[in-house]
Amino acid sequence: MSSEFGKILKVSVFGQSHGAAVGVNIDGLPAGEAIDLEELQRFLDRRRPGRNPLSTARSEADTPEILSGLERGRTCGAPLCAVIRNGDQHSQDYSELADKPRPGHADYTAWVKWKGHADMRGGGHFSGRLTAPLCVAGGIARQILARRGIHIGAHLDSVGMVCDEHFPLYPTPELFEAVAAKPFPVLDDVSGAQMQEAIREAKMALDSVGGVVECSAIGLPAGLGDPMFGGVENRLAAALFGIPAVKGVEFGAGFSAAARRGSENNDPFVVENGQIRTQTNHAGGALGGITTGMPLVLRAAFKPTSSIAREQQTVSLSARDNTRLQIHGRHDPCVAHRAVPVVEAVTAVVLLDLLLEGNHGTF
Amino acid sequence: MSSEFGKILKVSVFGQSHGAAVGVNIDGLPAGEAIDLEELQRFLDRRRPGRNPLSTARSEADTPEILSGLERGRTCGAPLCAVIRNGDQHSQDYSELADKPRPGHADYTAWVKWKGHADMRGGGHFSGRLTAPLCVAGGIARQILARRGIHIGAHLDSVGMVCDEHFPLYPTPELFEAVAAKPFPVLDDVSGAQMQEAIREAKMALDSVGGVVECSAIGLPAGLGDPMFGGVENRLAAALFGIPAVKGVEFGAGFSAAARRGSENNDPFVVENGQIRTQTNHAGGALGGITTGMPLVLRAAFKPTSSIAREQQTVSLSARDNTRLQIHGRHDPCVAHRAVPVVEAVTAVVLLDLLLEGNHGTF
Amino acid sequence: MSSEFGKILKVSVFGQSHGAAVGVNIDGLPAGEAIDLEELQRFLDRRRPGRNPLSTARSEADTPEILSGLERGRTCGAPLCAVIRNGDQHSQDYSELADKPRPGHADYTAWVKWKGHADMRGGGHFSGRLTAPLCVAGGIARQILARRGIHIGAHLDSVGMVCDEHFPLYPTPELFEAVAAKPFPVLDDVSGAQMQEAIREAKMALDSVGGVVECSAIGLPAGLGDPMFGGVENRLAAALFGIPAVKGVEFGAGFSAAARRGSENNDPFVVENGQIRTQTNHAGGALGGITTGMPLVLRAAFKPTSSIAREQQTVSLSARDNTRLQIHGRHDPCVAHRAVPVVEAVTAVVLLDLLLEGNHGTF
Amino acid sequence: MSSEFGKILKVSVFGQSHGAAVGVNIDGLPAGEAIDLEELQRFLDRRRPGRNPLSTARSEADTPEILSGLERGRTCGAPLCAVIRNGDQHSQDYSELADKPRPGHADYTAWVKWKGHADMRGGGHFSGRLTAPLCVAGGIARQILARRGIHIGAHLDSVGMVCDEHFPLYPTPELFEAVAAKPFPVLDDVSGAQMQEAIREAKMALDSVGGVVECSAIGLPAGLGDPMFGGVENRLAAALFGIPAVKGVEFGAGFSAAARRGSENNDPFVVENGQIRTQTNHAGGALGGITTGMPLVLRAAFKPTSSIAREQQTVSLSARDNTRLQIHGRHDPCVAHRAVPVVEAVTAVVLLDLLLEGNHGTF
Repeated sequence: MSSEFGKILKVSVFGQSHGAAVGVNIDGLPAGEAIDLEELQRFLDRRRPGRNPLSTARSEADTPEILSGLERGRTCGAPLCAVIRNGDQHSQDYSELADKPRPGHADYTAWVKWKGHADMRGGGHFSGRLTAPLCVAGGIARQILARRGIHIGAHLDSVGMVCDEHFPLYPTPELFEAVAAKPFPVLDDVSGAQMQEAIREAKMALDSVGGVVECSAIGLPAGLGDPMFGGVENRLAAALFGIPAVKGVEFGAGFSAAARRGSENNDPFVVENGQIRTQTNHAGGALGGITTGMPLVLRAAFKPTSSIAREQQTVSLSARDNTRLQIHGRHDPCVAHRAVPVVEAVTAVVLLDLLLEGNHGTF
Repeated sequence: MSSEFGKILKVSVFGQSHGAAVGVNIDGLPAGEAIDLEELQRFLDRRRPGRNPLSTARSEADTPEILSGLERGRTCGAPLCAVIRNGDQHSQDYSELADKPRPGHADYTAWVKWKGHADMRGGGHFSGRLTAPLCVAGGIARQILARRGIHIGAHLDSVGMVCDEHFPLYPTPELFEAVAAKPFPVLDDVSGAQMQEAIREAKMALDSVGGVVECSAIGLPAGLGDPMFGGVENRLAAALFGIPAVKGVEFGAGFSAAARRGSENNDPFVVENGQIRTQTNHAGGALGGITTGMPLVLRAAFKPTSSIAREQQTVSLSARDNTRLQIHGRHDPCVAHRAVPVVEAVTAVVLLDLLLEGNHGTF
Repeated sequence: MSSEFGKILKVSVFGQSHGAAVGVNIDGLPAGEAIDLEELQRFLDRRRPGRNPLSTARSEADTPEILSGLERGRTCGAPLCAVIRNGDQHSQDYSELADKPRPGHADYTAWVKWKGHADMRGGGHFSGRLTAPLCVAGGIARQILARRGIHIGAHLDSVGMVCDEHFPLYPTPELFEAVAAKPFPVLDDVSGAQMQEAIREAKMALDSVGGVVECSAIGLPAGLGDPMFGGVENRLAAALFGIPAVKGVEFGAGFSAAARRGSENNDPFVVENGQIRTQTNHAGGALGGITTGMPLVLRAAFKPTSSIAREQQTVSLSARDNTRLQIHGRHDPCVAHRAVPVVEAVTAVVLLDLLLEGNHGTF
Repeated sequence: MSSEFGKILKVSVFGQSHGAAVGVNIDGLPAGEAIDLEELQRFLDRRRPGRNPLSTARSEADTPEILSGLERGRTCGAPLCAVIRNGDQHSQDYSELADKPRPGHADYTAWVKWKGHADMRGGGHFSGRLTAPLCVAGGIARQILARRGIHIGAHLDSVGMVCDEHFPLYPTPELFEAVAAKPFPVLDDVSGAQMQEAIREAKMALDSVGGVVECSAIGLPAGLGDPMFGGVENRLAAALFGIPAVKGVEFGAGFSAAARRGSENNDPFVVENGQIRTQTNHAGGALGGITTGMPLVLRAAFKPTSSIAREQQTVSLSARDNTRLQIHGRHDPCVAHRAVPVVEAVTAVVLLDLLLEGNHGTF
């Protein structure tokens, strides 16, 4: 535990924003799986910065070099390590920050934990840049899952006060692909336009705005996950809180379930075409931590980008006194839309891990 | 992983609702810690059923027998195993349920996972009864933490649509104690009366209602937790989703942060009395997964009790056909208020685990 | 980690020699497995003390009470907790020892680690008594494995300088049963008689003697275990060193392989009856940490019982000065013969854990 | 688990012998530790091939590139990933081997596990080449330990039938350095000359020979390690069996303890200069899995190199029939002398991990 997650499939992320490289080591991938590197690159491109005026101006190719674990295009059972070199860095932008922790960032907590030894240029190991190697792992997991009929999709559920629709009861792979293909990943493009406007307004106001990502997985068998602390919700939550800026995770109706009555929230079981399903899916595909076979539905709340261009109140660590801080550099006014593939990636890794572990309920 | 959580301090919960006993094995407790068994019992009594008309009629003494790990009133370094015998069971109430999964319960997923071999009488291993041994572990952890100035409190943040106040910026041990001493654990008793009315109404309507529990920990040092997947949020979330009926977990401003701007959500750093603090605490005491030294604040959403007295739609597993189900037996119309000490318990265990691991940021 | 081992199947041992009880919690057992409690008791009886003049005079019924996880004779997916009450204790025998650590025991290291708070009466949590709950776990695992054609047997390979034969290239279930049925578990009864004589001589000399246990498992599929640190050898070794008094573990030819040439030690592959086997089995059934499908063969070295009746040199912890110690109480002059089923038990648990994890080499 | 070990300090090894690179990701290093890269290189050079006629002719520079975790020469709290590019590969040497598993190698078990998808050129992920990144991790751990007065040394205890002396009761850092500086790492150079002669003879005979490595750690505090399965012996054994070709691990007197009497094997406690020590150290520095404060002593048995130049019996996997195999390519006639720093490296990592975890016996 730390910069690693998974049980059978272990994903270890390394690198700092302004170091030589970021990367990921994936231990436990099944052998013989073809990995389509072009498809992987297309997935990585979905989170890549510098593509539109709503994102940071930092431009990175984000092309991973795979150092091990892949032989003639197929996984070979050995750990797969992928490295993405860091290129376009402006470390001088961060010189002032060594002494003035940015509000909302890990600068202060890293300074306390590592007694001033942390490399916090550009957020260091806490940077959103670390989501690039996460997407390498997730992009590989997605390909392996898709081959088994398990598909994962996500969209921007809200930005600020503007909400998208939720996923329908039975999302399809085509719906997931359609959303993923959009430059701005929402179900309802009218809402999407309003969200983009909200982001632009925040940017103009030298400010930022938060958002929620909704993610769904279809094609999962019933029976995955273990009771109590080994459930699909426990494992997904533990991993999702590893994405920078996530402050809340919920499944199915989530927090809104707390406002409901049981007769509204319970999902009645029905037999449809010989299959046991539920008429609604407020459970979000998991009961008792174990998958029901209905679509898995989760939401992750992203706080507004901590880096804002306005002057802010902070402290000088050396003087141990109050001071003011103006953050320069390039920053997204909203991270949530770029986080959409990241949530998919983390979900894909956790689900593949659960599938590899198998439903060992019986032997 | 499964019915166990923790890294240095491992807490393993066992038992079924209608089996011989439920219990907990706690491995990794520091030695030499005095455990006040009367104080422990008072803590357990806070979640005990059968105390007021809002709770299930099942009456259990819930007095743990400690089989190991405690010698002359102090922990001795060996694992501490505590057992609570099950007494007042009405297993015949559940006979119909073997074939008809109750909506919202784990009956169906357990049936799939264990191919019909699960002991699901009274919810089996998924029962809220398993929170009793969790509270044994948490009650012990609380005593050890309190001795180091770390205090944990919780209250019912909402029931249905009725909301309590949130905790103030700096809760005190006295506030925690005052709430814990109330028969209905809220900050604002007017809201509390409305919540109780909402529960009663749901009960009268043969229905149930959900709620949210807010929990806070004060006295934590800054620097606890590891980056990315080993953070205090990751570990707490993974554990909290192990409490039956939890469908969402958030820290600090949580989901509401997603609706905010950065300038509102960022917590400015200030020096107060020579100490670095934040003026607000929307981060809920953690930045980058590492504690800031501010109060830890989290919220867990509990869905409405799945067992309701109304007839419900379900399926017959044997006939693989639609059918109707009427749940008899005794059930809480709301679990959230009894869950208040359970959330405290799980939080206490995770925090003690983190403290025992130490802030090994430097050596 | 600590008093727990296993990955999918987690076995947690608790209790102290002179506490209320010893026991085990087993999390992750597959559901639907019939457990024959009489067969389990027969297995436990193989390590039970007090059966012959070579063993400690302490007499315990060692009958476990199963508190959870077993419903109508079958595992039900929930953790199985079994408790063995401690009965026949003579704690007064140990009063002097609180201040004088016994050479060869964990008294001193426990005193350092737990700053004098350890319950070391009778060895406390380090006592050989803790092998009783280990045998409960192992006895259950054996039954589940046997149903899949996997059988585990062990014998006393040596006592002091007296050696038994090694297992043949292909041991049979019948051979395992025949050895297990003997009052003194050896292959060659002539050697067995000499070993017993060696134990008696040690006892007469107020001394003790060590021994080696050889254990084998047959019927394992090829392909179990992961490379490098997740191999079958790594996991078995980690678990076997948890048995009190074990100071060495080897697989196949083990240490003797180091004295050989490659041409002698390599096991040539051959096709026999359409199956790929090796002509010899110096590898002990594992190459690269992964099972070959040949019998698994391991050996564990047990040091001589640390408790001897002779006066010994030690220190007074309170006076921090040299002193003499005479250990009274009841002790085995040799633990190795009673350890035979314990080695089988630990091996069975690790192998069942590996099997449950599955050969996830491909998906 | 798999190609990773450690609890607080996680070391993940990746790469295949003939892939692009081998490397290691180290998660959990304390921050602020200066790493002397020249000293690290000198340590790596001790296992480097191609230095003398006793080793494989493969020549690799083995200079790691550190991609993350090191900032201005000091660890920064983020994971440290180091990569060693593979250069001098002769993959064509291995073309025949895809169908003919080499006796003693993991070729067959990898083929079964990964259904023919393993990259086994040069042994793939099972190659001794993977010990280079292990030595990077160990070399870093050694520097951090040495700064705290903990020193680790090792020597070749035997080759074939030729034995070196054992370490003295109290080895010194100077002794460790002196052995490490020798081209052939033994205590007694006369024995060393005989060992080299034995290796040469084996090579001349187109054969190989095994050996034993003895390793010691001095300066450890008493009280490290947890009881039963979390002990220093359990963790070291689990890690040491991850070094290719290790078939046995023992501590202190190890297997020879089994041949002794208790009165000989027990280490009497004595007070010397106010410190509690033992007069002998047959326990090898651990009692009950917890360090005594005496030097830690362990031995690892290495089987003879499986690759020998003689023709050997094997099978054709495609024809499922018997065949003959002649291994070409470059191979060490003995791996044990090059394994000396590898055993030190793995020991260093495990001990640093234990130290970072801290002696949390009390709080």
